[in-house]
Amino acid sequence: MAGTFVIAQGGGPTAVINQTMVGAALEVRKRHPGAKVLGALHGVRGIRDGNYVDLTEIPEAELRRIAGTPSAALGSTRDKPDAAYCEVVLKGLQKIDTQAFIYIGGNDTSGTQQILTDASGGKIAFVHAPKTIDNDLEENDHTPGFISAAEYVAGAFLTADLDFRALPGIYVAIVMGRHAGFLTAASAAWRIDGESGPHLIYVPERAFSPKQFVDDVKRTLAKHKRCIVAVSEGVTAEDGRALVETLVPAEKLERDAHGNLKLSGGDLGMAFEHALKEGLPGARARVDALGYMPRGFVGAISKVDQQEAFDAGAFAVAVAGEGGGSVALQVENGKTVLRKVPLINVAGKTRHMPEDFLDAAGTGLAPAGKAYFERLVPKKYDVGKPFV
Amino acid sequence: MAGTFVIAQGGGPTAVINQTMVGAALEVRKRHPGAKVLGALHGVRGIRDGNYVDLTEIPEAELRRIAGTPSAALGSTRDKPDAAYCEVVLKGLQKIDTQAFIYIGGNDTSGTQQILTDASGGKIAFVHAPKTIDNDLEENDHTPGFISAAEYVAGAFLTADLDFRALPGIYVAIVMGRHAGFLTAASAAWRIDGESGPHLIYVPERAFSPKQFVDDVKRTLAKHKRCIVAVSEGVTAEDGRALVETLVPAEKLERDAHGNLKLSGGDLGMAFEHALKEGLPGARARVDALGYMPRGFVGAISKVDQQEAFDAGAFAVAVAGEGGGSVALQVENGKTVLRKVPLINVAGKTRHMPEDFLDAAGTGLAPAGKAYFERLVPKKYDVGKPFV
Repeated sequence: MAGTFVIAQGGGPTAVINQTMVGAALEVRKRHPGAKVLGALHGVRGIRDGNYVDLTEIPEAELRRIAGTPSAALGSTRDKPDAAYCEVVLKGLQKIDTQAFIYIGGNDTSGTQQILTDASGGKIAFVHAPKTIDNDLEENDHTPGFISAAEYVAGAFLTADLDFRALPGIYVAIVMGRHAGFLTAASAAWRIDGESGPHLIYVPERAFSPKQFVDDVKRTLAKHKRCIVAVSEGVTAEDGRALVETLVPAEKLERDAHGNLKLSGGDLGMAFEHALKEGLPGARARVDALGYMPRGFVGAISKVDQQEAFDAGAFAVAVAGEGGGSVALQVENGKTVLRKVPLINVAGKTRHMPEDFLDAAGTGLAPAGKAYFERLVPKKYDVGKPFV
Repeated sequence: MAGTFVIAQGGGPTAVINQTMVGAALEVRKRHPGAKVLGALHGVRGIRDGNYVDLTEIPEAELRRIAGTPSAALGSTRDKPDAAYCEVVLKGLQKIDTQAFIYIGGNDTSGTQQILTDASGGKIAFVHAPKTIDNDLEENDHTPGFISAAEYVAGAFLTADLDFRALPGIYVAIVMGRHAGFLTAASAAWRIDGESGPHLIYVPERAFSPKQFVDDVKRTLAKHKRCIVAVSEGVTAEDGRALVETLVPAEKLERDAHGNLKLSGGDLGMAFEHALKEGLPGARARVDALGYMPRGFVGAISKVDQQEAFDAGAFAVAVAGEGGGSVALQVENGKTVLRKVPLINVAGKTRHMPEDFLDAAGTGLAPAGKAYFERLVPKKYDVGKPFV
């Protein structure tokens, strides 16, 4: 086969999305000698504009070095192709004799592959390879990028808890996660004992009440003298809207091409600072956002995550040979296995955290949640118990 | 000698302050068999209230495990003793037959040791062992805690720069540093090439102009299509006040017992968000604070820093035998050496970043700054160059 394989990366970068890109590129080179492997720059935008990097001849050692580097080395995009954009992309793919287009990303990216599949005549294999720190793809036990992000978040909250043992107060950190609370819940993965924070977890799957929040913090302070709180940026108000939507005037809200609300501004943090000042005047309180660090902190990349992401890229090439689809990471007998699943099962859908991961109050892990994180994000550091 | 050695930790925790505590405790046990080693809980507050943990008999392996754990295991405090408080502390120390009090901390902590030295009759040796991520102690080339924090900051900006290569925009991160810009300047330590961020650095040693800031960002965007900015929380306005002081109404400003302004609220970040929205309407911009992570992130602790911190603790016991003083980390022939220096040289003083560390514009590292960070914080990760 001497056609062209196009690889691109979409959505937010992760610590291991380059593993998947390189895993796919090297697999094409192995399976299809003579085929061309092009990396489209900035996702479908690169195809639209004819911007590619030729991955066919780059030395394997250099590609593996890039694989070990966080963020999307090909560049990424949040473009959502409409019909006209789609047509340009399809023409672009045909022009370079594309036999398969492997697009690495989350639910928006898989949605784009579904749109392109529907618009194409079936001559090109469209493959979606999974990537998201949100861990919110249907059909997947977990997604490449999640384990590294979860380790960062677990480490960040272990760090904050130790810090606030030394100098007591209230600590709130906002964690990425638009609709699914997996990453925020990972904050509790490395608690060292029953005293450890995070003491309170708020995820998008449960309605958030500012009054309940202040009561929860007061109760925790009375018990532990400190209070460590993990909040998803996508936490929802009782009327079902994102909390930030209830706090920021409609004309100031920003959305991307997929209609996703910008959740990452400082407004949510300021709202928490304000609520704590009103509800607990005089208390030492600090509100931070972990920001972009979980999705690629160079010092906290999981080797398991790296290997799984690489394998998912290689497997995507096999799926291309079968006409396309979505690559899913599933677990059988305790081991991660790769499966081809229909694109339609994943495209544009959101997998929420299972109800039974949280306790009745919705602010702590229940046994099912604990078991999930013990399996995926086992403790990594030997931590001594402080005297305070 | 069968007296008592008291050890305590003051000020903000670091990744390695427990190394110093354990280094001191084990050295007392080695040098002074029969002596008692007590850890005061929450600094001088523990002495005032008679709250100690006995470190004399705890197995060495358990102490070494605590040494490897970030944050202050004895608890910390920001209390600044006045005359009455001092008297209670001195009586507390005499009551338990104290021959030396080793207090690990930064300039406020060394200031407390100076006050206690002045108030005591000279029978107790007061020793200050250095600790601060701000790196702002006089007499020191660098301070225990700084290298780990600097590595975190360098890694965070490398991560952010890679992220914003993939999805271009403006990224501003606020870094701890009240009066000295060392930690903020460390953001540039791991730039991979001339294109790399951070593109702009703002430190407390140079006056900050919001107008100049917006112009700097515009110029950088035109050149690199993205703009990565590192800002010290203590960045100063042109009238010499902390910028946050010019932004927040006086009645809302919070200070600790040492008169230090609370810089860590969201106000500074919101001011930057606002300036960017006004000056560059429509641009993708994200403002975050690195928050407490640099001072103890469990996944980014430097082995060199750990060893130096441990050695500083052991050396403090030798300084106690000489009647007290401050332990300083100095560099001779490229190697770190420990020296006893007079407490008065360090107490309550601030070492600023040397003028020649920054370029003429004050927003980038000059050769002297580069050389300092190359020596202290050499590159740690092999990063592949992205295609974008």
